[in-house]
Amino acid sequence: MTQPILDVVAIGNAIVDVIAQADDAFIAEHALSKGGMQLIDAEFADLLYSQMGAAMEVSGGSAANTLAGLAALGKKCGFIGQTADDQLGQVFAHDIRALGVTYTTAPASDGVPTARCLVLVTPDAQRTMNTFLGASQNLPAAALDADLIRSAGILYLEGYLWDPEEPRKAMRNAIDIARQAGRKIAFTLSDGFVIERHRADFQALIDQGLIDILFSNEAEIQALAQVQGFDKAVDAIASKVPLLVSTRSEKGAIAIQGGTRYEVYAAPVTEVIDTTGAGDLFAAGFLAAHVEGQPIEQCLKLGAVAAAEVISHYGARPEADLQVLRAKSGL
Amino acid sequence: MTQPILDVVAIGNAIVDVIAQADDAFIAEHALSKGGMQLIDAEFADLLYSQMGAAMEVSGGSAANTLAGLAALGKKCGFIGQTADDQLGQVFAHDIRALGVTYTTAPASDGVPTARCLVLVTPDAQRTMNTFLGASQNLPAAALDADLIRSAGILYLEGYLWDPEEPRKAMRNAIDIARQAGRKIAFTLSDGFVIERHRADFQALIDQGLIDILFSNEAEIQALAQVQGFDKAVDAIASKVPLLVSTRSEKGAIAIQGGTRYEVYAAPVTEVIDTTGAGDLFAAGFLAAHVEGQPIEQCLKLGAVAAAEVISHYGARPEADLQVLRAKSGL
Repeated sequence: MTQPILDVVAIGNAIVDVIAQADDAFIAEHALSKGGMQLIDAEFADLLYSQMGAAMEVSGGSAANTLAGLAALGKKCGFIGQTADDQLGQVFAHDIRALGVTYTTAPASDGVPTARCLVLVTPDAQRTMNTFLGASQNLPAAALDADLIRSAGILYLEGYLWDPEEPRKAMRNAIDIARQAGRKIAFTLSDGFVIERHRADFQALIDQGLIDILFSNEAEIQALAQVQGFDKAVDAIASKVPLLVSTRSEKGAIAIQGGTRYEVYAAPVTEVIDTTGAGDLFAAGFLAAHVEGQPIEQCLKLGAVAAAEVISHYGARPEADLQVLRAKSGL
Repeated sequence: MTQPILDVVAIGNAIVDVIAQADDAFIAEHALSKGGMQLIDAEFADLLYSQMGAAMEVSGGSAANTLAGLAALGKKCGFIGQTADDQLGQVFAHDIRALGVTYTTAPASDGVPTARCLVLVTPDAQRTMNTFLGASQNLPAAALDADLIRSAGILYLEGYLWDPEEPRKAMRNAIDIARQAGRKIAFTLSDGFVIERHRADFQALIDQGLIDILFSNEAEIQALAQVQGFDKAVDAIASKVPLLVSTRSEKGAIAIQGGTRYEVYAAPVTEVIDTTGAGDLFAAGFLAAHVEGQPIEQCLKLGAVAAAEVISHYGARPEADLQVLRAKSGL
């Protein structure tokens, strides 16, 4: 087992967020799943876009957002995910490379456009995500860069990408490659609906001992455990993974490692504008401290600082200097 | 002369802003004109983009930003400007239509991509703009919708668009159409370098009495008058236009009408993040009150409120509800 060169390599959707404000009536009228993520086809994506408000485009994708946070905190990262050879694909690739993240996946050229997520932010700062997966869902196992995966201490996988068949196969391959190289696997459950569709798969990964670090939120951990109540759900899963992390919105977050439970409060925010990316950036802060070998309390605190930054503005990637915020927080 | 249906129709660049943070060293290293706008070719646009940081894409264009503000203040507007048939063109068209602005200019299909402006925001909140004009500079006079121009009380023209030959011809045509319909012409000087290139043209328009409302900032009015000192420059121009408006950054703004000078302080801002669009939104607020027949003092105040909103976040179009801000300001 060689020493890793990168801290984290992630496989996730290569997606551009299209962020607009919307009111609750708009969400209801279009029967969208408020606060959640739903997959939509090209036709509905066009219809919804034509009816939603003026937007801003910012690179997104759950795992890619996490890497953006990790890179901002000085960590060395790589990303695997497929765009198309179009302007939004160029935007995604530019942005992730500009952060210093190694990104070598070739764009697809079959005419399917780059994935986009139509994010509607309601006045309560909740985000409702409507994702057209486009080229992202066709990521083939052949696109995996095995050397890149082996080069990183942690392979980070996005549950969202478990939906489409090709990337699911690719992620299973990637797990094998990482395991054989003696690397750790981190997995984020991503979304309650994704868990409903793939619970058996996720449970099997956990039961086979393939997940070293599991990221979740309150709803997700209960959906996975099929248990009502956060603490009961956490208890049901915690014994099966070496490290379980669960965020709890304004209530902060917890981590359980070796039977010990750690907690952190949410970091203060002047005004919550858009909660998109809160979980992604929490994972970024947590992992940044974790790869440094910091104690779990410190990992949770840095997660809370990174999450607080990203919910204070539109968009799911940090705008302020996370290293400055880290230093100010004494972490 | 029929009653106008629209308040303002504008001709301007159909452009998407690509906004990233940069430090002063980056601006110096690339010999960019800090605080100004420079035109760049496709090759330099690609080079600069590849070297600048992760960005967000937001529809821009000076006159289009002004319409975004006017529409947000409940005014009926139309826009004329040319995109390409590509994803950034779709973004521009979606965003302006989503604001309720009538926009019917067909995208060009000659392979020249949609215009983009690489906006670098330094820690002092100054913006340095690097514009690749793309399809925007090929706006042909044939693309003018004469009925749309005749339908609006004010034709608003963007000085930036005086640079390329085709749109310059189109704007001269548009002035004739508007004049014949008895409409007013508003003109924004846009930028000191643009004035250096086209001073004779701009002075001729003014001397011929074709400009009813002239928007400028401190540097621009001095460049136009070829006079050092703001007050002297204003004195030199004010007698030639029925209504002269000039913004002065943190010092507020002035207007001169019929020999009387009006002044307003800048509206307070908690933190200035990005000054892109300050002048555009000042013009929006001013014109919104002006088309209602409000006194000049009120027009200046609403201009200051709209400008204060747009400099408090990244991007040159309003994010907060300008009608709410207007009501809060008692305007």
